Amino acid sequence: MKIVLIHGSWHTGEHWQPVADHLRKAGYEVHTPTVAGHGKNVDKNVNHADCTRSIVDYITANNLSDFVLLGHSYGGTIISKVAEAVPERIRRLVYWNAFVLNDGESLNDATPPHYQALFDQIAGASTDNTIMLPFQVWREAFINDADLELAQQVYDSLSSEPYQPFVDKLDLKKFYTLTMPRSYINCTEDIALPPGEYGWHPRMSSRLGLHRLVQLSGSHEVMFTAPARLAEAIIAAARD
Amino acid sequence: MKIVLIHGSWHTGEHWQPVADHLRKAGYEVHTPTVAGHGKNVDKNVNHADCTRSIVDYITANNLSDFVLLGHSYGGTIISKVAEAVPERIRRLVYWNAFVLNDGESLNDATPPHYQALFDQIAGASTDNTIMLPFQVWREAFINDADLELAQQVYDSLSSEPYQPFVDKLDLKKFYTLTMPRSYINCTEDIALPPGEYGWHPRMSSRLGLHRLVQLSGSHEVMFTAPARLAEAIIAAARD
Amino acid sequence: MKIVLIHGSWHTGEHWQPVADHLRKAGYEVHTPTVAGHGKNVDKNVNHADCTRSIVDYITANNLSDFVLLGHSYGGTIISKVAEAVPERIRRLVYWNAFVLNDGESLNDATPPHYQALFDQIAGASTDNTIMLPFQVWREAFINDADLELAQQVYDSLSSEPYQPFVDKLDLKKFYTLTMPRSYINCTEDIALPPGEYGWHPRMSSRLGLHRLVQLSGSHEVMFTAPARLAEAIIAAARD
Repeated sequence: MKIVLIHGSWHTGEHWQPVADHLRKAGYEVHTPTVAGHGKNVDKNVNHADCTRSIVDYITANNLSDFVLLGHSYGGTIISKVAEAVPERIRRLVYWNAFVLNDGESLNDATPPHYQALFDQIAGASTDNTIMLPFQVWREAFINDADLELAQQVYDSLSSEPYQPFVDKLDLKKFYTLTMPRSYINCTEDIALPPGEYGWHPRMSSRLGLHRLVQLSGSHEVMFTAPARLAEAIIAAARD
Repeated sequence: MKIVLIHGSWHTGEHWQPVADHLRKAGYEVHTPTVAGHGKNVDKNVNHADCTRSIVDYITANNLSDFVLLGHSYGGTIISKVAEAVPERIRRLVYWNAFVLNDGESLNDATPPHYQALFDQIAGASTDNTIMLPFQVWREAFINDADLELAQQVYDSLSSEPYQPFVDKLDLKKFYTLTMPRSYINCTEDIALPPGEYGWHPRMSSRLGLHRLVQLSGSHEVMFTAPARLAEAIIAAARD
Repeated sequence: MKIVLIHGSWHTGEHWQPVADHLRKAGYEVHTPTVAGHGKNVDKNVNHADCTRSIVDYITANNLSDFVLLGHSYGGTIISKVAEAVPERIRRLVYWNAFVLNDGESLNDATPPHYQALFDQIAGASTDNTIMLPFQVWREAFINDADLELAQQVYDSLSSEPYQPFVDKLDLKKFYTLTMPRSYINCTEDIALPPGEYGWHPRMSSRLGLHRLVQLSGSHEVMFTAPARLAEAIIAAARD
């Protein structure tokens, strides 16, 4: 089985390593490309189309086909657009606590007002239209199942997020005509989006139509706190 | 402890075997009658009253009393009507991801519009007013926690479901005057009904008034994917 | 690490013992004061301010500072007011399936109408304006994960609850200006408040603003049914 893992905001492909190791041990061929504009010391001047193109380029350059395409968080907005670009190469889409945007929406449109205000303020105060999560938000609402040491260690490895892809409104008309199978993985303690009206599940999952649900205990960043558990969930979500 | 297990749509009493084995090992006397019109090579021309009567007849023919009556899914509509017919024989009602209909409702009234449209279409295309679940719906939304082999194997053992009992509107006035204890078992990955507005829990469970909630991880068909785990949940739901 | 555990209705500080033992083994200094008007053979003529004062007095008499303050259920209404009184002493607030009242609300205002009616009736029938939970409500909706013997044994240790603190409307303006960190612990099978519109989570948790969520399997009374599991959750909620 081949799988392409698309990271979320503030992350790069390298952050998948503990999860990728488990998947490889289980026999998977794992790809973890980094989305354009992500990582330290790279050009942050990218829009959502640039981000999507960087992944499509990776897929075509490596001539990948018959693979599962997984997106985490912001990565969900990328895989929906990649699926529009190369649908025939994709065996199944897997969204892990990821955004499934409605046609015409931006990521920001799908977040609660207090996040939009926070992001606007942080991006406005930056010199390069990027945002960094305040540590306290990261520690309490993103990696709530870590101890402080791990929370701090991972935080130090994050990089600032280009803001333009959060505000670009996406044309997803073709996405909503696609018919490949899809799964949603939901972490039951993920409060990166507040549970309820603005929560991940079932708000985002229900937009997939017929889909397979897999749940696991853990936070939005369970890839660091329990990578084996997440790998198991990915295997259940990705199989057949 | 005596327990009578009432299966859901497309199933027969024989599908309970793995769960019944665990319950018997725990000391239970287990009954698994098949509802009229269910199974292969049987007359499918039944309505909801026929289905209910077949279970009441089983109970009286076997002179069962002081037993727990459990219904799964569609089986919930049956146990509510059986409870009206022989309330004095029943120690406790247990609904496992089961329909608890409002007075005057049909099962179809309690399902989301896309299911009603799908069922209408499948029944209309059948020669005997029955419905079969498309495999993809079964695999993704009913038995999402199985591997493909188990999903296929159980699917092959299912039989077409008489459609009339789905559309019969049930008089449940007496049911809502009954006072025997009741429990609701909810599988946290059950998406046979889509979570949220049309979900099992708390939509269905809340109609029971004072009840005992037991939850377990698993899909709508956890009886096949983790029968021991379901048996444990049944024991917690059925005790005292 | 120091922690002060504030019990809920019908309980006293002594009920924490199994949980406190686990926390002490993990190196915690644990305090379990009993709220005024709670316990057997004590004066039940107290209002909410008396209850709060009894805990503030305990904290100042023992000169406690830099501690985590945890409230269970009704205890949530107490810790919010204690936090207003001695904010500088508190390291973090932890609500475990606890009420987080809006400014101006009473506990009763935050419960479903059927509880208010039940409580009014029971208090009215008492000679001392107290309420006791009917055993069946306790057994099914509060300690649903116990066996009958444990349910009965703990019930026998409960004491009647002064009703005035349930109806006192609380001025919480200062509470909503406080900035110390806060956590919410949610038991996934807690139906003491009915899930959904009147549920604990996310209704109560969301009022905390930025907070850390910890979930565990168990009922409203998991302190008796799985004290080690609750202690683990408290440690995850209380750390840093």
